[in-house]
Amino acid sequence: MNQHNYAVIMAGGGGTRLWPVSRRNRPKQSIPLVSEESLFQTTVRRLDGFFPPERIFVVTVAEQAIILREQAPEIPGENFLLEPQPRGTASVVGLAAAVLNRRDPQAVMTILPADHYIRDRDLFHYILRVAIDIASQGYLVTLGIAPTFAATGYGYIQRGAPLPETFSYPAYSVSRFQEKPDEETARKMLATSEYSWNSGMFIWQTGRILAEFARQMPELSLKLNQIGQAWDTPACDEILGRLWPTLQNETIDYGIMEKAEKVAVIPAAGLDWSDIGSWDALFDVIMPNKDGNIVVSGQFLSLDTHNSLVYGNGDGRLFVTIGVDDLILVDTGDVLMVCHKDRAQEVRRVVDTLKNSMREHYT
Amino acid sequence: MNQHNYAVIMAGGGGTRLWPVSRRNRPKQSIPLVSEESLFQTTVRRLDGFFPPERIFVVTVAEQAIILREQAPEIPGENFLLEPQPRGTASVVGLAAAVLNRRDPQAVMTILPADHYIRDRDLFHYILRVAIDIASQGYLVTLGIAPTFAATGYGYIQRGAPLPETFSYPAYSVSRFQEKPDEETARKMLATSEYSWNSGMFIWQTGRILAEFARQMPELSLKLNQIGQAWDTPACDEILGRLWPTLQNETIDYGIMEKAEKVAVIPAAGLDWSDIGSWDALFDVIMPNKDGNIVVSGQFLSLDTHNSLVYGNGDGRLFVTIGVDDLILVDTGDVLMVCHKDRAQEVRRVVDTLKNSMREHYT
Repeated sequence: MNQHNYAVIMAGGGGTRLWPVSRRNRPKQSIPLVSEESLFQTTVRRLDGFFPPERIFVVTVAEQAIILREQAPEIPGENFLLEPQPRGTASVVGLAAAVLNRRDPQAVMTILPADHYIRDRDLFHYILRVAIDIASQGYLVTLGIAPTFAATGYGYIQRGAPLPETFSYPAYSVSRFQEKPDEETARKMLATSEYSWNSGMFIWQTGRILAEFARQMPELSLKLNQIGQAWDTPACDEILGRLWPTLQNETIDYGIMEKAEKVAVIPAAGLDWSDIGSWDALFDVIMPNKDGNIVVSGQFLSLDTHNSLVYGNGDGRLFVTIGVDDLILVDTGDVLMVCHKDRAQEVRRVVDTLKNSMREHYT
Repeated sequence: MNQHNYAVIMAGGGGTRLWPVSRRNRPKQSIPLVSEESLFQTTVRRLDGFFPPERIFVVTVAEQAIILREQAPEIPGENFLLEPQPRGTASVVGLAAAVLNRRDPQAVMTILPADHYIRDRDLFHYILRVAIDIASQGYLVTLGIAPTFAATGYGYIQRGAPLPETFSYPAYSVSRFQEKPDEETARKMLATSEYSWNSGMFIWQTGRILAEFARQMPELSLKLNQIGQAWDTPACDEILGRLWPTLQNETIDYGIMEKAEKVAVIPAAGLDWSDIGSWDALFDVIMPNKDGNIVVSGQFLSLDTHNSLVYGNGDGRLFVTIGVDDLILVDTGDVLMVCHKDRAQEVRRVVDTLKNSMREHYT
């Protein structure tokens, strides 16, 4: 691959809906959910043969950096860019672009969330290659995902006309970004075949995206440039500590993408993608047994039990279920959660309740 | 009370349907299920002010005797009669009758299962007093329970004519014993108002019941008399060890009661009785909260959860439930069981499966 290609893994997020396994100091990307390795490790491994480790960067926060460095020792320590505190994805993307651009003005960066699941790695690499081709023509490329149901938990991207250039996978200009819709809106969008899910994966030249920052968010752009210039110098800590808390807290989608020029979308199909946003997502990425049950870990003995998931904490406990359907059972030792599969989004409410009732040590 | 009155607590049973809390070496009567004390302790305490400890006997097996003695230190050690192994309730009752009759030929014995729940102790004492009065007239008295639903898990007793003598609570001759019926039969029986549940509590003179043994089960009677004569002598171990395994394995109901003479039933109402036969029985004896939930132990945080029961093992774990109804959650540390309330009888099947799959250590 071209030596100007870089991956930037965004690994600063939380993951409240995957509580009680996902915790403040051990969020979902750093824990094994789908397999023996963490989602972050799987994300790094997915880049094998595409980006060499020295061209993989990780943006995260200090309290997560230690465990993430341990989980990916092949990535050079200085490639971990630490946000002093979360300030929205615009700042994360802008920081990475500024730092990369300073090192390599020709850099093309691929933004990847640390906590996504993609089954088909070869197809993913193929599409990344196309995306980088398109980005090299000056496009801001968004990776869309062909929707498989009327999801209300994702943003959508509406495609416009096909790009005038010819690439080795269909690509379109972006007509508009749609934030998380209600179910009826989602159904209507799906009926048109014009919409992809917004995966949060972006591919672009650092120069192009920094120009959009300068045009659309000039104050943020100015501060990020100051930080980028100071990076890897003795002055960095002082400047970062002073400027970071003053950055505008915005998402890259809303702050930049919606009004950006030359935005393209690749409506990727067949990646078998999931953002593992909540416990019920595991039913999409782990093959169940004949009764529809999934045992991520733990011993499981069931009578007349269907479409249920067991996630043990590896201490050898025996899980027994009798006459139940559609349950998510999660055991972390200190917490045992039993949640109806259709209510997986409400795990977040439990975390809020715990925080508001002086039981924050469980969160 | 009359000094010839004795209580005999039958504490040799298992309680497979209350697994995983009830185990082979720690069966249900010895564990706290309804309150802080064990069902056995509650049974003993229920006799306070009625039988002095020295006239309370306990029939059990050796492996349970240690913990039961610890739980009721006020009962003299020699009052624990140890069966070498379970041989049916006929042998248990016959042994207790033979031993008691040797000590006190005028003894009137009250047979009480160790694992029953009775809320109204005063009423229970009142009815026992009546039962002993009736037994003193030579009757074999069965304590019936006024049915509250068409139970298929209990045997029934059909009353006949009122007893000719006058007692201070209604009492009847027994028309017949009915083994556990199917639901339709149970409904029909309830419609007649003639049936009580067979509680397994019996009151009679030891001389009377031993005469029935001699008449109906002469071989068992002969052997029990030999054992009874040897009790408290140096020869006991040898005789018990030799004869006990040869005893006919029979229930007192089938072996004696069904064809006994002068059998009476007191159809007791209002005791708030339960045999705590399975997990769902706890819903009858523990007051639920406004959502119908019961927390026996453990911390519990629920969203939209109804008619469910949580039984923790006291290690401070937090139980969280979201959007579930009618569940029984039992945690013993090594096992976590989630059972639909309507399927509580099937816990036994899990225990059988574990025994048959080399996982007997969980049983």
